[in-house]
Amino acid sequence: MITVALPKGALLSDSIRLFQSVGLDFSAFQDSANRQLQIEDPTGTAKALLVRAQDVPVYVEYGQAHLGIVGYDVLREKNPLVANLADLQFGGCRMSVAVRAESPYRSVLELPPHGRVASKYVHCAHEYFDSLDLPVEIVPLYGSVELGPITGMSEAIVDLVSTGRTLRENGLVEIDTLFESTARLIAHPLSYRLNGGDIHKWVEQLRSATLNC
Amino acid sequence: MITVALPKGALLSDSIRLFQSVGLDFSAFQDSANRQLQIEDPTGTAKALLVRAQDVPVYVEYGQAHLGIVGYDVLREKNPLVANLADLQFGGCRMSVAVRAESPYRSVLELPPHGRVASKYVHCAHEYFDSLDLPVEIVPLYGSVELGPITGMSEAIVDLVSTGRTLRENGLVEIDTLFESTARLIAHPLSYRLNGGDIHKWVEQLRSATLNC
Repeated sequence: MITVALPKGALLSDSIRLFQSVGLDFSAFQDSANRQLQIEDPTGTAKALLVRAQDVPVYVEYGQAHLGIVGYDVLREKNPLVANLADLQFGGCRMSVAVRAESPYRSVLELPPHGRVASKYVHCAHEYFDSLDLPVEIVPLYGSVELGPITGMSEAIVDLVSTGRTLRENGLVEIDTLFESTARLIAHPLSYRLNGGDIHKWVEQLRSATLNC
Repeated sequence: MITVALPKGALLSDSIRLFQSVGLDFSAFQDSANRQLQIEDPTGTAKALLVRAQDVPVYVEYGQAHLGIVGYDVLREKNPLVANLADLQFGGCRMSVAVRAESPYRSVLELPPHGRVASKYVHCAHEYFDSLDLPVEIVPLYGSVELGPITGMSEAIVDLVSTGRTLRENGLVEIDTLFESTARLIAHPLSYRLNGGDIHKWVEQLRSATLNC
């Protein structure tokens, strides 16, 4: 039986719809009464784990799930040892640098040297500013990074932006984009090569379902 | 004006009650319609930031908040450069090792060498198993660590336990405790020494309020 790891949050409903289009029904995860984190498809051909987006690559890396769906942002941040098999075209967003609208900065090159940048994506932020040879201090936060510039703790933030509503509500504007992100289909590289659980068949079906969307 | 950082989640209501007992009212954070992450006490003597528990020490360390309330578990895990001023006696819980009830392990010393332990508290887990000279692999997860033993990815977990309900619901039992945790009052060491914003007065009042509880 094949096991897939699905991410809680923004990508869940599209992920469930994609698997439904190839005949696997994990919609029980969307039932508000459901507390189970591990369910079987009603046909008994597949199992799904419901985990945090950042944990999807962990379950795939450790071989607990043959396939997983996760945002490209997580792959860029954690650099896990998984095969990135397909761009699933949904969950589009971008990793951006934002500053207070009333600040004088309109490009990252204008940020003060040794200024501070708050982010949940510490690795992505480091990589980006290093590539520009801009010496900034990354302040690692777990949530509400927009508070960084509001409280004056940091000049800028690096964060994932989809509609931009949170930025607007907090008086922040984007000044640069690190990369665009979409949902990706990932697999354990060895399972994929050895075709455990008929992975190839499912991957082909998921790829065609994506192209026909 | 003094600024305090309050943690979202389990410690929030007791934290607000403590500050109310010394005359500072931040109960607006409990209003479900409130979306603000930064508010002023109605008397205008103090400001509060509402942040993730793990971010409280960051705001204090970087000098954006004079005082903060945070669980001892976060201090143990992140080891921030803050002054731990008082045990506030609420938010009691413990950092425990748990395994599946049907597993043969009844003590950490029985865990298989090079076995796997899933945890959100990677630093605490490493420190603990290193102190016992037990070579285990820590699997870093962001949420639902109980899925580790359930899926067979790990033999054990290290996690924060308060009532034990989550463990029971997932068929897990505690076999060891790393440490007990309660809410702590923290301050920026330098601000505290320099008595910025009349910190000493507030700390003394908060300490007496705690003792009189």
